Parts: sequence; structure tokens; C-alpha cells
Amino acid sequence: MVSDEQATGAINGPKTPQNQTFPTLDRRRTFQERKIGHRRVDETGQVTYKKIETSQICGSIQLGIGYAVGSIASKPERDLLMQDFAMVETTSFPASGSNITPAHHFTDFKFKAYAPVAFRYFRDLFGIAPEDFLLSVCNEPMRELSNPGASGSVFYITADDEFIIKTVQHKEAEFLQTLLPGYYMNLNQNPRTLLPKFFGLYCYICRGKNVRVCVMNNLLPSFIKLHQKYDLKGSTFKRKANKSEKRKGSPTFKDLDFLDHHPEGLYLEAETYSALMKTINRDCRVLESFKIMDYSLLVGILGYQVSIRMTKREKFKNPKWKRNKLITKPLTS
Amino acid sequence: MVSDEQATGAINGPKTPQNQTFPTLDRRRTFQERKIGHRRVDETGQVTYKKIETSQICGSIQLGIGYAVGSIASKPERDLLMQDFAMVETTSFPASGSNITPAHHFTDFKFKAYAPVAFRYFRDLFGIAPEDFLLSVCNEPMRELSNPGASGSVFYITADDEFIIKTVQHKEAEFLQTLLPGYYMNLNQNPRTLLPKFFGLYCYICRGKNVRVCVMNNLLPSFIKLHQKYDLKGSTFKRKANKSEKRKGSPTFKDLDFLDHHPEGLYLEAETYSALMKTINRDCRVLESFKIMDYSLLVGILGYQVSIRMTKREKFKNPKWKRNKLITKPLTS
Repeated sequence: MVSDEQATGAINGPKTPQNQTFPTLDRRRTFQERKIGHRRVDETGQVTYKKIETSQICGSIQLGIGYAVGSIASKPERDLLMQDFAMVETTSFPASGSNITPAHHFTDFKFKAYAPVAFRYFRDLFGIAPEDFLLSVCNEPMRELSNPGASGSVFYITADDEFIIKTVQHKEAEFLQTLLPGYYMNLNQNPRTLLPKFFGLYCYICRGKNVRVCVMNNLLPSFIKLHQKYDLKGSTFKRKANKSEKRKGSPTFKDLDFLDHHPEGLYLEAETYSALMKTINRDCRVLESFKIMDYSLLVGILGYQVSIRMTKREKFKNPKWKRNKLITKPLTS
Repeated sequence: MVSDEQATGAINGPKTPQNQTFPTLDRRRTFQERKIGHRRVDETGQVTYKKIETSQICGSIQLGIGYAVGSIASKPERDLLMQDFAMVETTSFPASGSNITPAHHFTDFKFKAYAPVAFRYFRDLFGIAPEDFLLSVCNEPMRELSNPGASGSVFYITADDEFIIKTVQHKEAEFLQTLLPGYYMNLNQNPRTLLPKFFGLYCYICRGKNVRVCVMNNLLPSFIKLHQKYDLKGSTFKRKANKSEKRKGSPTFKDLDFLDHHPEGLYLEAETYSALMKTINRDCRVLESFKIMDYSLLVGILGYQVSIRMTKREKFKNPKWKRNKLITKPLTS
């Protein structure tokens, strides 16, 4: 049961964009089509979220995260307590600077860090050192992904392709915070979990508007050229990539496409198969306990030859490959 | 810094009896003195709790625990979820028996098992197999300890000296259940914790009365003959064992006695000292997060020569010694 293909993937909890390779806006859309949720694109191509410009949001969030992560990193390590999950720390960032925050060219804002001690613990568990996190998130401008989720969420990606910052609704942010104790339990008991990695939850407050964001791992860093990508829900009802998706350079296919392309499923070594089915079962039980049902399994297939080449080259070129590596996992046949 | 003494101990969260070596009642006390809280002793020496006889309580609880632990042990292992901490399972035990419970000679009763999946996880973490737990708790009659806590709690001890079953008030049982997620977190992060080991939380319901009990480890199994015992609170206000305590064969001394007996403290190897101070600090932070302040550190000192003799003899005589071994730990000097 040795495969000439490699399957890679993870469970998509909160929706992540399914295609991240088209950073330019689709000019064929009409102006009206360009408003989804709080995200708007004006005629000049300027993107706003809750009427705040992308550059302002990204820059302020980078300052906020820089301060929040730096300040918690300087505090001594200690055990995580239940109370830490409910904690919120708020800091003011006047444009003129303060004795703890730098001066900046954006509008005055406030920045809330949710459960900072808990997220420090999670980052540590995921092997992300504070200095690496800050370098990735705060050092260079982020870019916005062009295809927002159906909910109107906006996705910003760090320049090094490591992290995604996703806007979340008020209710979603609250929900995420209540899930943290259960999330902690799952990470402890089920370290091979395929559930998303959460690195932080924040709220940027400016001109009376709240922009809540969570920081997640980027499942599809652009340097990995996948042969095929599938977003699987385990349903066959309308689960087919549409024409515009298929026209893309790296389309994300769905369940019916998978059945069509791989009628016999994918072959995996017996041990890999059983270990991963167990992980998926455990993950599904956790999602069920959270009463979450709108999730899918993101499956990437790397052609075997491509994988060998990429591994050799990328391991040297990109020392972060090890961290980025998507977990090999099975598909139901 | 090598000591000729061995210090052993653990943090006493909920109060445990400080002397377990006098199973006979103190006949000098007047009848009136013999009612503390819900515990009464009548003129014939019969002990009741909430007007239910000890034999009835013990026998019913043993049946209840036998069923609860047996039934959860037969269910497949799975990850612990947040919801498991809040779970309660109730079973009826009619004297005539039912299709799931045996017939018995006690009054009909109901039995509630709180957070059974969580306690199965804890027992497993503490290395207690279900069959060993059932053998210890349910196989032979338990005895009641003669010196109830100040709160009127009653303590039953298993025949093999392994476990203590302590009655707890309604509020205390509720509180214990709310602490379980934090307790789980502490066990995961701080496996050398000196906090009490909890193996189960139950409620026996009979004649409209609720008797809530928790099952804990017995810190002072009688086969270990300690040279000295201290109950330390870190306070010197009235912290002296009274005359009647001192008359006992194995008295429990307090802070002022310790300062008197060991003016220079106890000598421990540097590594042991620092490791244990760290554990105590972490434990205290957890207790603080639980807003618990009425706890003490139970310190047992085993004379070095005695310890050598005991270790050689008892290791063969009592294979459970390893499990019972009290953790060596430091005292502030």
C-alpha cells in the first residue's frame, strides 16, 4: 500500500480562503458585487473593512500584536490557569506615542489582547518562539487576500507566508474565547490534531469600530506547489467546484470532484491510515462537543516526484519548512 | 546538605484528619460533645451521619461506587471533553435489585456519580487501574475514623488503607466539581503536584437525605510509622498542638512546634529543595486561583534508620508501598 502520491491536509474549522494565489482583484466584477459583509472595494480599488483602510488596519494590528506579544514574553513563564482563558488586556495607542507604546502615523486606536497567557502557552506548544512570531507578523507589511470568505471576513497574510490574520465577527470571537479550555484539552490529549492552530485573538478599536481578528497558521504556503487541493465535507450535495474555480491556476475541488478524480480513494500505508483516521475521529468528537458542524477537511496532494524535489530544495531554502509541513493524512476511499 | 532524616508530605487541600491511629471513641467526652455537624454518636456508640447508620452508608456507597466505576470502565476510552466535568450520572438501587444493580440488604437508595469520565481520566493518570480501585474500595468493609474534622465531616477508610472517603457539604461538592477543569490543567502541567488526589465524587441519596462524598488518597497509611508529623499553615498565630493532641501516640504538631523542634529547618539536597519549592509555589498559585486559603502542608518525617528498615521490610510485605509513598519535600527553614 505504498502510494506514489502524498496527501496532505488539515481540518478547516473557521473558514479559511480556499485559494490564495490571486492577489490581484478581479476587475470583471461590478462595483456592487464588491461589498461583502463589512468589506468594501471602492472604484479606485481601495479596500476597506468597516470603512477603515486596509493599510491602517494592518499597520495598527501589527503595532498592537507587537506590543501584546512582546509584553507577555517579558513576563515570567508560569502554569496556565482557568482564569487565563477569560482574560482581556487593553492598551491605548495614541498616534503621539505613550510611555509604553510607540508613536505612529495611524489614527489613535485601542488594542485588546484576549487570553494573552493562554495564547503564549499555545504558541509555545506549537513551537513558535516569540521573536519568530514577531518577525513574521510585525516586521513587514502584510498583504490582503483577494477572495474573502462568504461571511465577508478579510484575510491578511504575513509577508513570509507563515500566518493568516482573519477578521471575525463579535459573536465568533466570543465563541472562540469560550472554546479555549476545550481547545487546550484537545491539544494536550491529541497532539496530532488537525484542527486549526490559533496563535492569538485580538480586537483593534478605532473610530468607534471594533475589528476582531484571530491569527492562524497558513495551511497553504505559496512555496508548496500542490498538485491537487480538495475541500471535503463528507457530503455530495452540490459539492462540485464551479467553473470559475476550475479556471484558476490552483483550483480547490470538492467532494464530487474527488470521487471523480480518485474513484478508488488514495492509498496510504496501513499504519498511517489508521493513525490518521483516529486523529480525524478525535477531532470530529471535539468539534461535535463544541457544536460546530460547518467545517471541512482540506486535503492537498503533492505528486510524489514533485514532493522529493521540493523537499530537497525547500529544506535548505526555507528552514521553516518543517513548521509549515502539512500533516500527511488519509482520505476515505 | 545530606540529611539523616527524610521529610515526606503533601498539601492538604480539603481538611483530612490529622491523626488516624485511634479508632476507638474517646469515652471521656460527654454525650453532647459527640454531635458535630451531621455526625452523631448515641449512647451505645452507634455513629450516624444525617441519622443514617455508618454501616448503611458505607455499604451503600460501596455498592454505588462498584456500579459506577465498573460501568464507566466498560465504556471505550476516549478523550476528555469540557462537558465531562459537568456530567452527573444517577442510578437507582432498589433493595430488591434491578436489571443493572444487585439486590442488597440496605434501604433503597439512589447514587449519583459526578463527572465519571473525568474521574476515570484522573484515576488513570494516578496509575489506579479500575480493578485495583474496586478491590480496595468495594471488597471489604471500610472503617470510620474516630476523629471527624472540625466541619463535622466523616472519614471512612478502606480496609487496605489506600483510600479515604470523606463526606462533603452540598456547597463543597459543587465547588469541587467547578474546580475540575482547573484541577485537570494542574495535573497536566504540574505532574509532581502535592495537591490531594481525587478519585471520585459521589452522592448517596436515601430517605430524602443526600450524603455527598469524595474519594481521596490516604496520605498516612498506617504501615508507615512516621517519626514526626506536622500540619503547617505558614502562620505562627495559635499554631501549637494542644495537650490532648500531644498525648497521642503519633501527634500532629503545628508551625510553632516545628520551629521549636527544628530551629534550623530540615536539610535537603539542593536539587530536591529547589524542585520541591517550585512544586509548592505552583500548587499555591493554583490554590490562589481557586480562591482557597484554608489549606496546610502535611509534613511527615521518617527517621533515616527507621526509613531504611521500613523500606526493606515493607517493600516486600506491601507491594503497594510504591503507590503510597509520600513525596519527599522541603520545609522552609
